[in-house]
Amino acid sequence: MKIKLLDGSINEYNKSMTIKEIAVDLSTSLGKTVIAGKVDGLLVPSDFIVEKDAQVEIVVNKSELIEEIVNATAGFLTMVAINKIDRNAINAEISYKKNDMEFNATFFADPRWKLDQIESLQNVVNQLMDKNKIAYKAIDGKILDQEFSQNKYFLELGKEYIAKNGIAFCYELDGVKVVTDQVILLDLSFIKAIELQQLTGSYWKDSAKNEMLQRVHGLAATGKKILEEKKAMIEERKSNDHREINKRLKLFGFDPLIGAGLPLWLPNGVIIKDEIRKFINEKRWEYDYLKVTTPVIGTVDLYKTSGHWAHYKTDMFQPFKAGNDEEFILRPMNCPHHIAVFRQEPHTYKELPMRICEDAFQHRYESSGSLTGLERVRAMEITDTHIFVRPDQLAAEFKSIYKMVKEILDTFHIEIDYLSFSVRDPLDKEKFFDDDKIWNEAEAQLEAVLKDMGVEYKRMVGEAAFYGPKFDIQIRTVQNHEITVATIQLDFVQPLKFDVTYIDADQSLKRPIMIHCAQIGTYERFIATLLEQHKGALPLWLSPNQVEIIAVGGPESEAYAEDVKNMLRKQYIRARVDARDERLAWKIREAQIHKIPYQLVLGPNEVKNNSVNYRQYGGEELIEISKNDFLNKVLQEIKLKK
Amino acid sequence: MKIKLLDGSINEYNKSMTIKEIAVDLSTSLGKTVIAGKVDGLLVPSDFIVEKDAQVEIVVNKSELIEEIVNATAGFLTMVAINKIDRNAINAEISYKKNDMEFNATFFADPRWKLDQIESLQNVVNQLMDKNKIAYKAIDGKILDQEFSQNKYFLELGKEYIAKNGIAFCYELDGVKVVTDQVILLDLSFIKAIELQQLTGSYWKDSAKNEMLQRVHGLAATGKKILEEKKAMIEERKSNDHREINKRLKLFGFDPLIGAGLPLWLPNGVIIKDEIRKFINEKRWEYDYLKVTTPVIGTVDLYKTSGHWAHYKTDMFQPFKAGNDEEFILRPMNCPHHIAVFRQEPHTYKELPMRICEDAFQHRYESSGSLTGLERVRAMEITDTHIFVRPDQLAAEFKSIYKMVKEILDTFHIEIDYLSFSVRDPLDKEKFFDDDKIWNEAEAQLEAVLKDMGVEYKRMVGEAAFYGPKFDIQIRTVQNHEITVATIQLDFVQPLKFDVTYIDADQSLKRPIMIHCAQIGTYERFIATLLEQHKGALPLWLSPNQVEIIAVGGPESEAYAEDVKNMLRKQYIRARVDARDERLAWKIREAQIHKIPYQLVLGPNEVKNNSVNYRQYGGEELIEISKNDFLNKVLQEIKLKK
Repeated sequence: MKIKLLDGSINEYNKSMTIKEIAVDLSTSLGKTVIAGKVDGLLVPSDFIVEKDAQVEIVVNKSELIEEIVNATAGFLTMVAINKIDRNAINAEISYKKNDMEFNATFFADPRWKLDQIESLQNVVNQLMDKNKIAYKAIDGKILDQEFSQNKYFLELGKEYIAKNGIAFCYELDGVKVVTDQVILLDLSFIKAIELQQLTGSYWKDSAKNEMLQRVHGLAATGKKILEEKKAMIEERKSNDHREINKRLKLFGFDPLIGAGLPLWLPNGVIIKDEIRKFINEKRWEYDYLKVTTPVIGTVDLYKTSGHWAHYKTDMFQPFKAGNDEEFILRPMNCPHHIAVFRQEPHTYKELPMRICEDAFQHRYESSGSLTGLERVRAMEITDTHIFVRPDQLAAEFKSIYKMVKEILDTFHIEIDYLSFSVRDPLDKEKFFDDDKIWNEAEAQLEAVLKDMGVEYKRMVGEAAFYGPKFDIQIRTVQNHEITVATIQLDFVQPLKFDVTYIDADQSLKRPIMIHCAQIGTYERFIATLLEQHKGALPLWLSPNQVEIIAVGGPESEAYAEDVKNMLRKQYIRARVDARDERLAWKIREAQIHKIPYQLVLGPNEVKNNSVNYRQYGGEELIEISKNDFLNKVLQEIKLKK
Repeated sequence: MKIKLLDGSINEYNKSMTIKEIAVDLSTSLGKTVIAGKVDGLLVPSDFIVEKDAQVEIVVNKSELIEEIVNATAGFLTMVAINKIDRNAINAEISYKKNDMEFNATFFADPRWKLDQIESLQNVVNQLMDKNKIAYKAIDGKILDQEFSQNKYFLELGKEYIAKNGIAFCYELDGVKVVTDQVILLDLSFIKAIELQQLTGSYWKDSAKNEMLQRVHGLAATGKKILEEKKAMIEERKSNDHREINKRLKLFGFDPLIGAGLPLWLPNGVIIKDEIRKFINEKRWEYDYLKVTTPVIGTVDLYKTSGHWAHYKTDMFQPFKAGNDEEFILRPMNCPHHIAVFRQEPHTYKELPMRICEDAFQHRYESSGSLTGLERVRAMEITDTHIFVRPDQLAAEFKSIYKMVKEILDTFHIEIDYLSFSVRDPLDKEKFFDDDKIWNEAEAQLEAVLKDMGVEYKRMVGEAAFYGPKFDIQIRTVQNHEITVATIQLDFVQPLKFDVTYIDADQSLKRPIMIHCAQIGTYERFIATLLEQHKGALPLWLSPNQVEIIAVGGPESEAYAEDVKNMLRKQYIRARVDARDERLAWKIREAQIHKIPYQLVLGPNEVKNNSVNYRQYGGEELIEISKNDFLNKVLQEIKLKK
């Protein structure tokens, strides 16, 4: 048996070997630090037996994979503990959620299992951590059917794992067996801290048609200090989650009768959206974009023509009829609508590029389980653009789009993580629209522009869409999610499907290239990101409430406060008087909690001086300046979008 | 038999009398001018026999009804003419469309009937006009079945008429019989001019599932001169139809693949919409309205709760599913969504009135036959508002809403035709939400405000909605349609259905009154009206293209034209250079056709003087002023919304 190692060297063995044995054979230190292995790319436990030629990688305790493995181990130990407490519990699934940094153990048990049992469970888990060794066995379909016929969850999951990886894993401790695809530590000395956090209900397979299971959530780490750091980070992230921020700022809400994932934008949220929209519209004016408004629905035939129906149906809501003949559907994308605008009349080569843009409402079907605040919704408003260009205009237009997007992101102080340029794999004639000439020319033009602009980017071969190369602007959110904030996507195919043409100089009909671009993506996700990046304290120009005025010392001050408010509001500055019957200190604190950029405290002194006393958000200092100076200062700051 | 006349007097007869006989009996002149009668309110032909006590009105040839009667007569004569030309044609329906000022005769015939037969038909109609007398007979259900069993159209229509009026009419000329509910002249001397215009196809009962019939359209009048005037008026109206205007201005379009009645707002249309929106938003800011954006769909349960599902289902698109459990529907109205916004958190009496507004997309199902440009659509954007007030705030809020709407309409120079105030019939406990106290108080408050403001209005008893009194602002369009441009509608019922409350001063929960108000209704219909009222020449601030620049005399002028354009565009003035390779006179004419408010002609002289030469739309004069003066003049005019 030949074992090919990562460095390319090959070891020969004349018998089967476990990962651990191979590690020991390679070096003493590897033998001490091995926690798992990779066999032909598949992560496996350290007792996994290699029986035939394979590429093997030894995974040690310093590996990045330790996190995942430690957490899966904690999930396993929790499952064992559950069975020790309740012999009737039926094990289901252990898993690890990287983004939430938590492990889960899901099982079926008496519904009376309650939160207060977490403590006794924790005690059992602590005892189990002191054990030495977990038994491991590889599972194929036959073993699964023989040994786990009593557990429908293991049967169902096990089949999935075997279908995917050719194998499932079974671990055993104190007589409790668990079937999983997770790799765990068989040597428990590598895990030092497990903290169970809560017990929740969870439908089997996330479908409300199935029975309700129970789920333990917990954190695990290789050391107690690391666990504490993790808890602090989770706490920090949670407080910066836009849903958490929204509880104070009241920007959006939901209502079950209207429907899950369909945001209601409340007055404060609309202010932010409108300020962003105003700015985007100014840029559109500057760059000669043509605004349109098109219907939020289309006929099913429209999406059959575009190809969305064939490839995208499961992400769409279902169609509905009007009268007897017509069948409509909520649009999931707006390209066909903008093509319909372009096709309203014939265009000549002189009219291109034609830049059709819209703040467009669109709907996508997402399962209710995956909906997350504004980040993942079913109804959204996207800053959408479709540009029709002649092939010879591609380079100049791409440069101009990139410049516009960059200016927009800079204004929001959004830092780009990296840029990616996805091109086709020229050998793959299936995955990509087959027209070498148009691909070669377009990719070369774009690449030349990027070099010309001195922009650094990752070139991703084979990652283009079927219909053309694309350019993505990636950012990293405060929640550590990588998201595409803007995308510039070429499309050779839709103009063909809808027979889009322009009249060239020689009077012949030519086909334009279409460029899709969503400058800031959807308002929903963009605002969620902005909120998290600013921890809710938005810059002045975006703040729903810009100036909060507090009057102290009687009716004269109160009248003066109204005057100042009216002066500011006449200039469209969002100012309010806090007239609630509360103490000064309480009002000042309230304004801080609601992240209001300017707080004015007006008393007899300010009335006399015709001045204001202001405090900026986050600061302590109170500064007195004339009423007019304050107005001009605020107007200037709004204008500069600082 | 006692016949009560209009003046209250009663004539007694000892036998049955026709309308004509009663007229003759009353006076010689009445006998000569009688064309029809009204018996207990029902319009009947002059040979109708009155057999029992009734209230009778004699209709003479000076009556307003002459128009309708003459046109129905023309329809009848056309039908007779059709049967004279084609014995196999099956008569169906004669009718008169008041708004289009035309009569129709609809029949089933060989589909090869063609337009060129209109001429021979016209000849026969002309001959028929010289006949003296048409025979008349009243039809009941029995006669209908006996005499018209061969004609399915007469059977079906006749049943409808008898169900509605207790009678149908049958007229006969030259052996051709027609069953109808229309009243015609039996004495043909009153009709002098009939002009047949076109032949179209038309599904029986307007349903594409039925067979296609043929329809003759024509005009008729009591004199040749009146007919000519009518034709001129129709021509004028047609050229002022917003669909006609749109052919030049290119504001909106449709696409069959997207769907009938779903407008695509093209770039020029969006400019108008955005300018109006900006203005409405300024007013909303001034009047302390809170803008929200809510989903264009809701669950079916939402509309079951609101009651729309029960009462309004046929005007809605059909529901659609998401996943397996959830069922959604396109919203036809936005009240439930704004209630959901209000209910996001508890509110105290101090927070009222709360004015929630939105430019909201909504969808209504209309049969495809009834769709008309922007005037009647299936997708629309409405300037919607729902205001939650305490009962004691009603008067002040109503006054404020009326003031706001009036200011808006004044800015658009829209003349109000009349105001109507619809109240309940206090005796009708079925038709109106049953709570005397709330109705009495609300109606009294509103009426006091109207009197206080010195506003004249029509009081319509029994015309209120089920859920509260309403106030409508009616205008008359250029097409002579009466439409409601804005409505203020009280609602006692929705707050009850959704259990909407506020916390009163004494901490008890109270129910607010909701006020619906759509300041300018939908953008679609409002803009259609504006276009027609201005015959397409919109005021400067609303014009999609405000300044058209034409350079004459070489590259220096062309460069200067670009400079002037950029100067204007920097101030968001919509200026373009007409760089097409055409003669000056052609370009000037083009700008006139497209109703562009300002035309600049720039040549070497203007380059030298750093000036512009402008011509205003509709004027002839060219005026030279400095570049900056022109800029300021335009900015000022835009600001004043003249």
